[in-house]
Amino acid sequence: MQNGAPSSPVQYAPIDDHLAAELAKRFGPAFSRLDADLQTASEDASGLRRRPEAVLFAKSVEDIQEIVHLANLHEFAVTPRGAGTGLAGGALAEHGGVVVSLAGRNRILDVDPVNMLAVVEPGAVTGRIRKAARAKGLFYPPDPASLDKSTIGGNVATDAGGPACVKYGVTRDYVLGLEAVLPGGDLLRAGVATRKGVVGYDLTRLLTGSEGTLGIITKLILKLIPHPRAVRTALALFPDPGKAVAAVGAVMNSGVTPSCVELMDNRCLTLVAELLPFPLRGGQTSLLLVETDGDEASAESDMACVVAACTQMSAMEVLPAGDPTAREKMWEVRRQISTRIHDAAALYMSEDVAVPLAYIPELIASVQMLEREFGLTVYAFGHAGDGNIHLNIIAETLDPDTRERMDRLVERILNTVLNLNGTISGEHGLGIAKKRYAPLELSPASLTLQRGIKKLFDPNMILNPGKIFP
Amino acid sequence: MQNGAPSSPVQYAPIDDHLAAELAKRFGPAFSRLDADLQTASEDASGLRRRPEAVLFAKSVEDIQEIVHLANLHEFAVTPRGAGTGLAGGALAEHGGVVVSLAGRNRILDVDPVNMLAVVEPGAVTGRIRKAARAKGLFYPPDPASLDKSTIGGNVATDAGGPACVKYGVTRDYVLGLEAVLPGGDLLRAGVATRKGVVGYDLTRLLTGSEGTLGIITKLILKLIPHPRAVRTALALFPDPGKAVAAVGAVMNSGVTPSCVELMDNRCLTLVAELLPFPLRGGQTSLLLVETDGDEASAESDMACVVAACTQMSAMEVLPAGDPTAREKMWEVRRQISTRIHDAAALYMSEDVAVPLAYIPELIASVQMLEREFGLTVYAFGHAGDGNIHLNIIAETLDPDTRERMDRLVERILNTVLNLNGTISGEHGLGIAKKRYAPLELSPASLTLQRGIKKLFDPNMILNPGKIFP
Repeated sequence: MQNGAPSSPVQYAPIDDHLAAELAKRFGPAFSRLDADLQTASEDASGLRRRPEAVLFAKSVEDIQEIVHLANLHEFAVTPRGAGTGLAGGALAEHGGVVVSLAGRNRILDVDPVNMLAVVEPGAVTGRIRKAARAKGLFYPPDPASLDKSTIGGNVATDAGGPACVKYGVTRDYVLGLEAVLPGGDLLRAGVATRKGVVGYDLTRLLTGSEGTLGIITKLILKLIPHPRAVRTALALFPDPGKAVAAVGAVMNSGVTPSCVELMDNRCLTLVAELLPFPLRGGQTSLLLVETDGDEASAESDMACVVAACTQMSAMEVLPAGDPTAREKMWEVRRQISTRIHDAAALYMSEDVAVPLAYIPELIASVQMLEREFGLTVYAFGHAGDGNIHLNIIAETLDPDTRERMDRLVERILNTVLNLNGTISGEHGLGIAKKRYAPLELSPASLTLQRGIKKLFDPNMILNPGKIFP
Repeated sequence: MQNGAPSSPVQYAPIDDHLAAELAKRFGPAFSRLDADLQTASEDASGLRRRPEAVLFAKSVEDIQEIVHLANLHEFAVTPRGAGTGLAGGALAEHGGVVVSLAGRNRILDVDPVNMLAVVEPGAVTGRIRKAARAKGLFYPPDPASLDKSTIGGNVATDAGGPACVKYGVTRDYVLGLEAVLPGGDLLRAGVATRKGVVGYDLTRLLTGSEGTLGIITKLILKLIPHPRAVRTALALFPDPGKAVAAVGAVMNSGVTPSCVELMDNRCLTLVAELLPFPLRGGQTSLLLVETDGDEASAESDMACVVAACTQMSAMEVLPAGDPTAREKMWEVRRQISTRIHDAAALYMSEDVAVPLAYIPELIASVQMLEREFGLTVYAFGHAGDGNIHLNIIAETLDPDTRERMDRLVERILNTVLNLNGTISGEHGLGIAKKRYAPLELSPASLTLQRGIKKLFDPNMILNPGKIFP
């Protein structure tokens, strides 16, 4: 295979005073070395920190082409960044250099109700795009938990998922076309403005999920669909997490496709007990938050199928949301879990595995055994309907021994997942946080090809280096 | 860009008697130079002919790895082939060498109702997979017109579409994972067996739609969904093709997503007049064949929305299919059109353009003008609901002047499509037939990258050479 071997680690040039002066002259106040800006750009939602040497608040496509051009010339690293809500460190400057903030490139250029598509800049917040579509009767389904903050560019870069993806598919399924500045500085136009298109290789989807390593997205053409007219929401209570996950398969096999099937295990529920619309009876109670949508009649009849499946699978009770306020409260429970786990732990690792539906019970049982073996606590919640379970491992202390135990537990969990025919990341990506695990899932042939693609796009390895590949 | 420039045309070694003897020794009777086999392998549904020098009926993955290995060693071309139903010559041996038939690798290895996926070999006929899924209450939606003959491997290689794609998406949306023999001989495993997965670059979708130029698919993991329980079908009659296509936007914007919106213009209808369940009144009558599906209630209420939209947009009449037999008759009309156009013409070219919904009327009006300008006849039918219109240009004579006029008309049509923000191929691919038009749609930067990807995967250019790239 040509170009297969990774080049030896590139040495990146520092942004010294001389270079900084050149950049400041070129970009004016959009180029910053202010401590506050570097501080903000040094964090995302992964808990990792990497301080860049400078931040460029991109004002135009030309700015992006120019910084990439200068990076190739001077050999410094460039890392694109949206809202910094990523969970794997994908937007952090692993090798210093310049973070290019796309947050200011946030226009919704068009929401076209006839052609049912949106044209947006990468810094547009996903929630805003959803609202703009909704106002015209249309629906942009992908709904990562961060949607009120995260940008569409970041969503596309990580191929973000969310609860609605069990019915509607992931971000990738809604990207029809894109424009991106390639690492060499050329502007790439890929994809189409139509539902279909098969002209040449699928560069649109190659860039989608590439975590900002193959190009800096500057424009997106998104597919929209008619907004469902009605939704039904319910909480199904199960006596223990094993019974809750056993019901997931039955719900998904009930002949209808629910628009969300979210799991919250007993550990998660103890953290949000005061928010629950029922008293926590016994320590093992676990929940499925389920929704169906469509027109009034089908949302209702689909929910009847889902409820029947839950009841059949030993649900103790199914509580419907009687009105939008009750629905909002149920979602508040789900949304609070991440934050509360984070707050409760000294040390915290978030895994994002997915397994085929039939193997979720086995995964949960294995995790319970591993918890005991390693003396650590694992919270399980997330998008059970597509097998994508967020496993949050926490420890009360920060000592090296605990960290090492946690690392070993993570590796055991990931191997378990792969033995169950699953994937080590359903929707967060590898970034910095998980790149060392890539070889567990990807074969040498696959990694060689992927490194070759990276080198083809970015011969000088200036764009978002240090990500994905171990 | 590294590897960007196309290498000078490769000289391929002939399969001479010496080499043929070596291959026959290695593969036994699976290796054929029989005239009948070469004849069959020299055709597809494009009308083009390219005679290979030999055919290998692959019996195993190892066979495929071995032929690829020998092709690199001896520098002959290898072209993968399913059922030969492609419309762009993608499975034809443009540079001679060995056609590798996957038709015998046709097992449906698993249809898993719990995990809602199918695992299949590339030679499995798509219609068989759909039936096997249906038997377990599941649905594999992509439905190219050729589905009773075409293989899933070919469908994936071309990212095939079909009428149902307007609601359910294209083949790509149902490929979760795959295995493929790379041009270097390694077996690549890409993708997942879950609904989600974001580990590394999306090689699954890079191979999907790559027309057999990046790898020979040996196994596929397909996503299945619950089978809709009910369907409603109707024919909407319009006084002329312009009014029919004007209604498409209204139907798609009616707030529901129909499961098919197929156009048949007045020219097409004259060819199938005796099959129509109504008398052809006037020469301009044009049809939309529409369907809705879901549960009984929503299929019914969605159809009511679609009918209302058609009536609003000057439909003269909407004829519902009262029973499965009536439905079957309506589909027979649609299916016969391709064949009858083909039979009616001395010279025949099939275009497969797609434009955003709002521009279909403009496309049809432009085509009508161009027909007059060039003195040629264009039949328009196909998947209007996603803007994907098959334009079939015919001539009664075969002389060089007519062919040249036809070529010029095609180029004018394709430029019109691109000016309307469309694509020159919605679902058939470029293959040999349309590769010369690739630069109309793809920028130099894009073509350079794509050629680089091809060279990275296939440094000796042995796999399916002469396709996609001009």
